[in-house]
Amino acid sequence: MAQATRMEHDLVGDKEVPADAYYGVHTVRAVENFAITGSTIAQFPDLITALAAVKEAAARANRDLGLLPPDIAEAITDVCEEIRSGGLHEQFVVDPIQGGAGTSTNMNANEVIANRALEILGHPRGFYDVIHPLDHVNLGQSTNDVYPTAVRLALVTSLRRLGDSMEALADTFSAKAAEFSDVLKMGRTQLQDAVPMTLGQEFTTYAVMIEEDRQRLTEAAALESNLGGTAIGTGINGHPRYAALACAHLAEISGVPVRPAGDFIEATQDCGAFVQLSGVLKRVAVKLSKTCNDLRLTSSGPTAGLGEINLPPVQAGSSIMPGKVNPVIPEVVNQIAFEVIGNDLTVTMAAEAGQLQLNAFEPIIAYSLLRPLTHLRAACDTLATRCVPGITANRQHLHDTVHRSVGLVTALTPHIGYTASTALARQALAAGRTIKDLAAEGGLLTTDQLDVILRPQNLTRPFTEPSAVATP
Amino acid sequence: MAQATRMEHDLVGDKEVPADAYYGVHTVRAVENFAITGSTIAQFPDLITALAAVKEAAARANRDLGLLPPDIAEAITDVCEEIRSGGLHEQFVVDPIQGGAGTSTNMNANEVIANRALEILGHPRGFYDVIHPLDHVNLGQSTNDVYPTAVRLALVTSLRRLGDSMEALADTFSAKAAEFSDVLKMGRTQLQDAVPMTLGQEFTTYAVMIEEDRQRLTEAAALESNLGGTAIGTGINGHPRYAALACAHLAEISGVPVRPAGDFIEATQDCGAFVQLSGVLKRVAVKLSKTCNDLRLTSSGPTAGLGEINLPPVQAGSSIMPGKVNPVIPEVVNQIAFEVIGNDLTVTMAAEAGQLQLNAFEPIIAYSLLRPLTHLRAACDTLATRCVPGITANRQHLHDTVHRSVGLVTALTPHIGYTASTALARQALAAGRTIKDLAAEGGLLTTDQLDVILRPQNLTRPFTEPSAVATP
Amino acid sequence: MAQATRMEHDLVGDKEVPADAYYGVHTVRAVENFAITGSTIAQFPDLITALAAVKEAAARANRDLGLLPPDIAEAITDVCEEIRSGGLHEQFVVDPIQGGAGTSTNMNANEVIANRALEILGHPRGFYDVIHPLDHVNLGQSTNDVYPTAVRLALVTSLRRLGDSMEALADTFSAKAAEFSDVLKMGRTQLQDAVPMTLGQEFTTYAVMIEEDRQRLTEAAALESNLGGTAIGTGINGHPRYAALACAHLAEISGVPVRPAGDFIEATQDCGAFVQLSGVLKRVAVKLSKTCNDLRLTSSGPTAGLGEINLPPVQAGSSIMPGKVNPVIPEVVNQIAFEVIGNDLTVTMAAEAGQLQLNAFEPIIAYSLLRPLTHLRAACDTLATRCVPGITANRQHLHDTVHRSVGLVTALTPHIGYTASTALARQALAAGRTIKDLAAEGGLLTTDQLDVILRPQNLTRPFTEPSAVATP
Amino acid sequence: MAQATRMEHDLVGDKEVPADAYYGVHTVRAVENFAITGSTIAQFPDLITALAAVKEAAARANRDLGLLPPDIAEAITDVCEEIRSGGLHEQFVVDPIQGGAGTSTNMNANEVIANRALEILGHPRGFYDVIHPLDHVNLGQSTNDVYPTAVRLALVTSLRRLGDSMEALADTFSAKAAEFSDVLKMGRTQLQDAVPMTLGQEFTTYAVMIEEDRQRLTEAAALESNLGGTAIGTGINGHPRYAALACAHLAEISGVPVRPAGDFIEATQDCGAFVQLSGVLKRVAVKLSKTCNDLRLTSSGPTAGLGEINLPPVQAGSSIMPGKVNPVIPEVVNQIAFEVIGNDLTVTMAAEAGQLQLNAFEPIIAYSLLRPLTHLRAACDTLATRCVPGITANRQHLHDTVHRSVGLVTALTPHIGYTASTALARQALAAGRTIKDLAAEGGLLTTDQLDVILRPQNLTRPFTEPSAVATP
Repeated sequence: MAQATRMEHDLVGDKEVPADAYYGVHTVRAVENFAITGSTIAQFPDLITALAAVKEAAARANRDLGLLPPDIAEAITDVCEEIRSGGLHEQFVVDPIQGGAGTSTNMNANEVIANRALEILGHPRGFYDVIHPLDHVNLGQSTNDVYPTAVRLALVTSLRRLGDSMEALADTFSAKAAEFSDVLKMGRTQLQDAVPMTLGQEFTTYAVMIEEDRQRLTEAAALESNLGGTAIGTGINGHPRYAALACAHLAEISGVPVRPAGDFIEATQDCGAFVQLSGVLKRVAVKLSKTCNDLRLTSSGPTAGLGEINLPPVQAGSSIMPGKVNPVIPEVVNQIAFEVIGNDLTVTMAAEAGQLQLNAFEPIIAYSLLRPLTHLRAACDTLATRCVPGITANRQHLHDTVHRSVGLVTALTPHIGYTASTALARQALAAGRTIKDLAAEGGLLTTDQLDVILRPQNLTRPFTEPSAVATP
Repeated sequence: MAQATRMEHDLVGDKEVPADAYYGVHTVRAVENFAITGSTIAQFPDLITALAAVKEAAARANRDLGLLPPDIAEAITDVCEEIRSGGLHEQFVVDPIQGGAGTSTNMNANEVIANRALEILGHPRGFYDVIHPLDHVNLGQSTNDVYPTAVRLALVTSLRRLGDSMEALADTFSAKAAEFSDVLKMGRTQLQDAVPMTLGQEFTTYAVMIEEDRQRLTEAAALESNLGGTAIGTGINGHPRYAALACAHLAEISGVPVRPAGDFIEATQDCGAFVQLSGVLKRVAVKLSKTCNDLRLTSSGPTAGLGEINLPPVQAGSSIMPGKVNPVIPEVVNQIAFEVIGNDLTVTMAAEAGQLQLNAFEPIIAYSLLRPLTHLRAACDTLATRCVPGITANRQHLHDTVHRSVGLVTALTPHIGYTASTALARQALAAGRTIKDLAAEGGLLTTDQLDVILRPQNLTRPFTEPSAVATP
Repeated sequence: MAQATRMEHDLVGDKEVPADAYYGVHTVRAVENFAITGSTIAQFPDLITALAAVKEAAARANRDLGLLPPDIAEAITDVCEEIRSGGLHEQFVVDPIQGGAGTSTNMNANEVIANRALEILGHPRGFYDVIHPLDHVNLGQSTNDVYPTAVRLALVTSLRRLGDSMEALADTFSAKAAEFSDVLKMGRTQLQDAVPMTLGQEFTTYAVMIEEDRQRLTEAAALESNLGGTAIGTGINGHPRYAALACAHLAEISGVPVRPAGDFIEATQDCGAFVQLSGVLKRVAVKLSKTCNDLRLTSSGPTAGLGEINLPPVQAGSSIMPGKVNPVIPEVVNQIAFEVIGNDLTVTMAAEAGQLQLNAFEPIIAYSLLRPLTHLRAACDTLATRCVPGITANRQHLHDTVHRSVGLVTALTPHIGYTASTALARQALAAGRTIKDLAAEGGLLTTDQLDVILRPQNLTRPFTEPSAVATP
Repeated sequence: MAQATRMEHDLVGDKEVPADAYYGVHTVRAVENFAITGSTIAQFPDLITALAAVKEAAARANRDLGLLPPDIAEAITDVCEEIRSGGLHEQFVVDPIQGGAGTSTNMNANEVIANRALEILGHPRGFYDVIHPLDHVNLGQSTNDVYPTAVRLALVTSLRRLGDSMEALADTFSAKAAEFSDVLKMGRTQLQDAVPMTLGQEFTTYAVMIEEDRQRLTEAAALESNLGGTAIGTGINGHPRYAALACAHLAEISGVPVRPAGDFIEATQDCGAFVQLSGVLKRVAVKLSKTCNDLRLTSSGPTAGLGEINLPPVQAGSSIMPGKVNPVIPEVVNQIAFEVIGNDLTVTMAAEAGQLQLNAFEPIIAYSLLRPLTHLRAACDTLATRCVPGITANRQHLHDTVHRSVGLVTALTPHIGYTASTALARQALAAGRTIKDLAAEGGLLTTDQLDVILRPQNLTRPFTEPSAVATP
């Protein structure tokens, strides 16, 4: 039995729409035109919610200006709140990768809101003489100001979520740092033994890195809106007071501080903020990847690796090698980092390809930011819950390594000079002996002096105590 | 009411598995560990099918070698055929972005095949003493030879599909080229008027580009397998004759010519083939994007643009500008191209990050190749069905443009020299007059000579007819 | 005749150094080891100057702390000032692409400063017992705090220069915007006619974009220093008060506000700031490229193009097409943008590849930031001097285009609704008639109303004057 | 005293040219217009030589066709040979980053050849009535066929050089592989101990990787020429027989097999071959980087690292840590790899940005291929001469690691099953005992069986000897 339909019309002609769909003709055409990913924009609830917030802000502003009858404004507002509460998302059926600069997404929102508002007011779907998707829901708006504003709002919301996950991850690393604060180990530069540090210092670094990046994220999460610029930013068909009103309503509705852009024409075509935000995500990815590289490296082994720390086993590592445990959690984080970095390139190319008064490629920009944001958040959560808390240190091995390392010679340099130190290091390496023994034997420093100089706490911070270590 | 479960065990400990699931403990852990994309590997049927083909090839080889009892081999083979026919795909539930170098995907396959084979033989699920996911289904294999082989096989299948879509798109452009073979237009270099050509020649170029890229794709679709290399390519635990047998069976099963790699250790860790294949996809994307840029540019207008061709309207273009039609189909193709190029970077970074005997990041490589392949195919199909066939030419406008253009002066250069031609061009531009009129008036060439030189068919191909155009 | 040499020594053994070279054995080995680009770090005067500033700050701090004899400190300081005034740059002979995390660059500086200081104090070169490149010039320092600090300082200086050039370019666009403030033209979205705007608004956009990016640059130009962290950030061998002193001296010497990093261990290994700065450069490049794309597009023609503006001819455009003029200046800017974007990827990969306590790949990061900075500056200067000031507008053509465009229909939508406007637009396009005529003929609006609505100044800004345009 | 000049003229007006310069007015303008890198195209001798080869081929073809007087043809040919022998390169003074799609490079070549040919025939420079840079040297040519052909020819030559260097590097690795063929070590997957292999197998892998990439390079080095297509590929102003003749002459002159493109219009605008070649360079870079990552990792230490091999010390590693030696040669190679990958992105973006009948951005493409090619070659040469030959193995350490590793348990799996093996591995790890001892103690296998199974030569290749190892 055929699906019941209603007939709608657009510039291309007549088109059947499923009778029970809240969306309309423009959405149906878009679904047919863009069958790319097999998914819909509803996979990004933050975007759907943001669209509703923008539409609500516009309805309120138009009501304030007397451009929209109060009952229609109220019906529209009610629908927007319903969407913001999680309702109707399944009606957002267009593909996230779409031509048309977001027009199909905007049309989808306009149609869903109009038809649901009609329903609230007791009219059948498609009764657009009463509430029209464009003349009413989209009043004083253009895709070109609605869509970028909604995307930016969705990004701010997503960024906040990511920020929370990053903070939790940083906390996890900090807790481990406290646990490892007394574990001495060799620091390495260029993978070669350098000078001692504590494992706590190493883990603090991971926490600091993430926390710094979180702050950069926060800075990037500002929301500048071109709402009111309409088609190309000149504000054609817009009321002179609309922009300020809509912006204020949007801030109130969303709880996000929204600022009107300084130049609406520029703001309408400018994807610089997306590029920069993507750059910050890339920064986060790069650092997270570096941290996971280090976790994988320092946990390598158990026998033929560095064997400094152990990651908690979360699954069997091999279908052929029994007992093998792999660093699968850091590995998945690395891969998400690579994905984020690739998406940054997509954003860059799309941004560069903008022409004249609009960038037609904002849909792929939105897609290439919202997905990585979700994945990055999953990466942080996974790392914070399934890996970091269970990390343990191989304390004895780390201790032994420090004491056998020629890297300790660096601490002697202020007392015996670079040239003598170099000779001592070469000697220690060749003979397989410790720096301490050789330095004492050679009479370069007394045992007492060496004890002070090589005391762990003196090796892991600035230290100058000339009296105690005066050369003999 | 709680879901019925069965208990399974691995190195991490006991774990409940849904009683009716064909997958087992390893899969369940992987699902918990990797909750990244919200999707599963089943979104890539070519990959699931390829996994089954590899498992079947292995089972056959092991049977041939007497390592696997015939009844077990047959049961495994039957399940693999079931999967290759589209069955059981919903049992492949691990996230495509996963740590562990594909181990979870391989484990998922091993467990599904084992449990379904047990079922066929009349045993309950989890009865691994009879058929073990690792000792039987994975016999003589490692994720490190199974997974890359399956991914490559899936890529070859996907590439063939893409090739078909590209061929169809090239044909569509060729048909248009024939239709436009007599439409003269100005060619442009650096966006400035250059010399005449036909619109047919321009569309032929689009067809040729795609066809050339299709050939490069075909060349990249070779399949070199490291099956038999097991864990790191040394072939440990493998039978000396296994590699050749498995490879031959795989070729027969899949219909794809599979070659054993020259050096299995190298092949096991080498992602160069993925990088190169990704590079070819990038090439396809770059060219497709350029073609769509041109379509958007030459169809710009209708008034304030080049207005050379018209794309068929497929949806209303604007929520604020009535009657506006946008080049949404080329736009979506451009965006897919940007996505492909971004994915190439992800592949590159993942490939570079391989360490020692294995690249742990093949899952993101597979993901970043299989998805773009699907999207590229959708791009070609969409362009071929929803845009190119409906393109029309603004013949009169194109004709007028050629005849008013000073670019025609180039055709005079062989007869009057570069310096005189430059002067003539400047004069025509300043006076807003045609080259032909000015050249005739100035006595540089006779009207008869000009008629021959400027005859359309003489302008769009190599042409030298000294007798007809000898300078006066 | 053989070059005169002196003998120096390092851990590898003895090595001849040109007798008159200020650099020494470490530099000579680096020159031999790294023969990559055929160039030297002296191509970046900002880097050489920054190195000297850091070395001077260290010498002053060590003098303050009583660690360096006053006469030696003074000699070192004098040499640093000499270098900062442009002297001795030719002695910086190591390749900018080098292994060793910048050690060779630091060694080069240490040796040049030591030998020149020796000369000032009347000693021959190589007399390192008196002033030692490492024990004195490098006292309390490590490549790992000196080099990143110097690179960041050089970047800040280079960024300031770029900022100046961007400001000048923005001014040039603003001046043109003023000149074109009364030129009406069609705005375009997705390359299709949208609604009117002025050419002045379009050029203002270019200015605003650049100015916004300049502000982002300024924000990115903060300098956080890890000076005092020494080898891995723990401050080993450093005096507890050194970091604060050195930082203060560096700020005074360089005139750049330098802040000590919050966590020296993190700061020593963290390349996040480079990634972010590179991201900002990429943003600048993307926008500059977009602007140049627009300039090339709107100046396309002269006959078969948009023909809206004319770029000043700066050279003949073709070796075969006489009279052809190409947009070569925007083209070179586009190419520099592509180069900058490529370099951003190099920076990203190098940053991600850092391991444990240090990123060994800062030299390529420095190279991939300093070169693009120089090229971007050249791009801005070239555009500002050789292109923008000479741009002229084809006023009549622009005027005609607006008045023939169906895009004007948008202005009627608030008065007659989206559906009626769509019908009107289709009618106008089919009949080749103007919106104004058809709207009047159809009785949709009166001629008086249309005159008001379609008045240029009402089309390029928010406009609502209900009394004047009340629908009939 | 002012420099002596001669006056030349172009469409911009009169211009003074240095009297002794072989180049002319077009070159002088280009030098002024493009002051970007501070360098000239003469840094790429392969490009200058290729330009001369193309010009000579054109002159010969024009002479054959009777279009160029024999004496002029001969003079041009002589100059081209002079340039191909290394002469006159300093006259190629335009910046490699230039607008105009290579026109300035072509003009530079035309002018230098014309003036030097005039000199040979006894005329003063600038006597263009006798030999004209455009009417004679550039006869039947356009930048748009000459420049891409020359760039491709230069690339082929450069690729051949790189191929030679790669071959030498592969040989060096192969020699080391032979030296290390009996050194057993643990293979690692995902940085965790996997199964044994020989160090010789590991080094063979490096050789095989490079050799495979070299073959891909060779495949990419084909030269398809659009010579004869002139301005946009239609062949306007070209003689019908010119293309075949010029192509044949070019092949003969250059020694490179040159094929005419199948479709000249497509070939003129298509940068796909550059994108693909760049992709192959990227592949080489990725693999070279991976190899260097491994060398740095396995040589990490000397105490707190893997300590498997030692790289020869080539310079002191630190200004603060005496005796430290760093893997500076692999590090510089890594950085060049990152540079190459960044350049690939530049090539990609430039290729995508082509419009209509030409890609205006070939200069940056050429620059972004020719420089990386040079650097990659330097990378291979440096690695092959300064690092690989001096590598030594820590044989005892490697031996011990294998025998202490639980990874050996894998070899027992075919005999005792995956589940029992897993238990054994966990037990060995917990107790710090060897697999062999525990397996024997537990009665899982006899000591004799274990001796056979764990014999080194049986661990590093496929091995099945059921009789010898039948389970008890």
